[in-house]
Amino acid sequence: MIQSVDRAIRILTALQGARRMSLSELAERLELPPPTVHGIVRTLVAHGMVVQDRSSGRYQLGPAVLRLGNVYLDTLELRSRAVTWAEELSRRTGFAVRVGVLLAEDVVIIHHEPRPDGSRQMPEVGIVIPANASALGKAMLAFLPDEADDLLAGPLRSMTGETVTDAAEFRKQLDDVRGTGLAFECDEAVLGESCVAGAVFDATGLVVGAVGVVASTSEWPVGDSAVEAVRTTARTISRELGAARWPAT
Amino acid sequence: MIQSVDRAIRILTALQGARRMSLSELAERLELPPPTVHGIVRTLVAHGMVVQDRSSGRYQLGPAVLRLGNVYLDTLELRSRAVTWAEELSRRTGFAVRVGVLLAEDVVIIHHEPRPDGSRQMPEVGIVIPANASALGKAMLAFLPDEADDLLAGPLRSMTGETVTDAAEFRKQLDDVRGTGLAFECDEAVLGESCVAGAVFDATGLVVGAVGVVASTSEWPVGDSAVEAVRTTARTISRELGAARWPAT
Repeated sequence: MIQSVDRAIRILTALQGARRMSLSELAERLELPPPTVHGIVRTLVAHGMVVQDRSSGRYQLGPAVLRLGNVYLDTLELRSRAVTWAEELSRRTGFAVRVGVLLAEDVVIIHHEPRPDGSRQMPEVGIVIPANASALGKAMLAFLPDEADDLLAGPLRSMTGETVTDAAEFRKQLDDVRGTGLAFECDEAVLGESCVAGAVFDATGLVVGAVGVVASTSEWPVGDSAVEAVRTTARTISRELGAARWPAT
Repeated sequence: MIQSVDRAIRILTALQGARRMSLSELAERLELPPPTVHGIVRTLVAHGMVVQDRSSGRYQLGPAVLRLGNVYLDTLELRSRAVTWAEELSRRTGFAVRVGVLLAEDVVIIHHEPRPDGSRQMPEVGIVIPANASALGKAMLAFLPDEADDLLAGPLRSMTGETVTDAAEFRKQLDDVRGTGLAFECDEAVLGESCVAGAVFDATGLVVGAVGVVASTSEWPVGDSAVEAVRTTARTISRELGAARWPAT
């Protein structure tokens, strides 16, 4: 671990949580002297990773991070493979489709296919959902025992009254996912939203992401044909990535 | 400048240009010993900014950069103000709409409203266009003399046979933009694509971005009503950001 690089990323992370922060707020958050933080922030500003507001002098994230995010998406093989199948899954089921990857204890959405009914919907690419409250997260964690252990070493985050926060019950859910390949979420991340998802594996047989349909809870359960369509989609994308079996274990 | 932070960002930048890079390729690109690069890369991996491919051992950007990019968009006042007006501009003109900011010598697209004809279009958020080849870039550079001087200190990048690469001719174009508030681009970034854009100013009277319509060159010139709609949109967004005048100088 290179200390100043670690600190730079902690500054970027701190700026994720607040609209704009002053140097002294950043220094307090990182528990470091302001001059130390200032040197790192200036380096981040020089590269456009952070920008300083001219009137207030406060800092916020800069356009270079947006460019990085876009390149990440462009170079992600999972995404290029998933785009076509996500559209097909949305068309067949009438539901919105999400594709996500795991980032520590969160799912990051890397592709979002809106419901095909033409309604105006919030774009979801880049948003994060606590993995334990998400069907995509459970679909991945079921096949990532180390990551599941890490998550269960601490308390599970509660998003709604429906979020499973009991470790034994959560482990039981992951067992079920390993049996069927599919994970479910009903009102656990957002009230009124439910999801069924399957893990995507690569040629090494390891999980690289998950794909699922998002329905409103009033449409839940979504019916066998939609569940089967999710299973087929997860298996097809896995096969395109070189996975020999689905689920891989 | 903190050296190791600067190096970390140079590693992220190097990974923007290539799909995946090995440690030795990264070390060669940065002209640093592999162990030095390895320490920085490991720190970036620990935070999900970079991921290592399990089979090849090569590095690529990680999901944490996508999350940062999404938060950048969410916290950008220009974007929250521009979204509604971009949709209105697209509806009124029938063209796609781009909103962008300047990042060194590039324009980064922060919002994209597709043509309202329902055709399936590539999302553009996060893509970069050389500022000198872009109507949005010229609209901003006309009111950012220091940035224009920096750009003109080196050779102008040529994207097509139509890109203006002569410094004197480019300065003349910027003079015209200061007169009318509007900048034009015809086949200069991408053959077949043309654009008219206006700068957006904030309460301090400084440029914070630009907004414009994108037409196919077969539809060019776009007609007075579309040009006026761009002008009105740039002025309206500027006013919402607190600008007293448009153009501000």
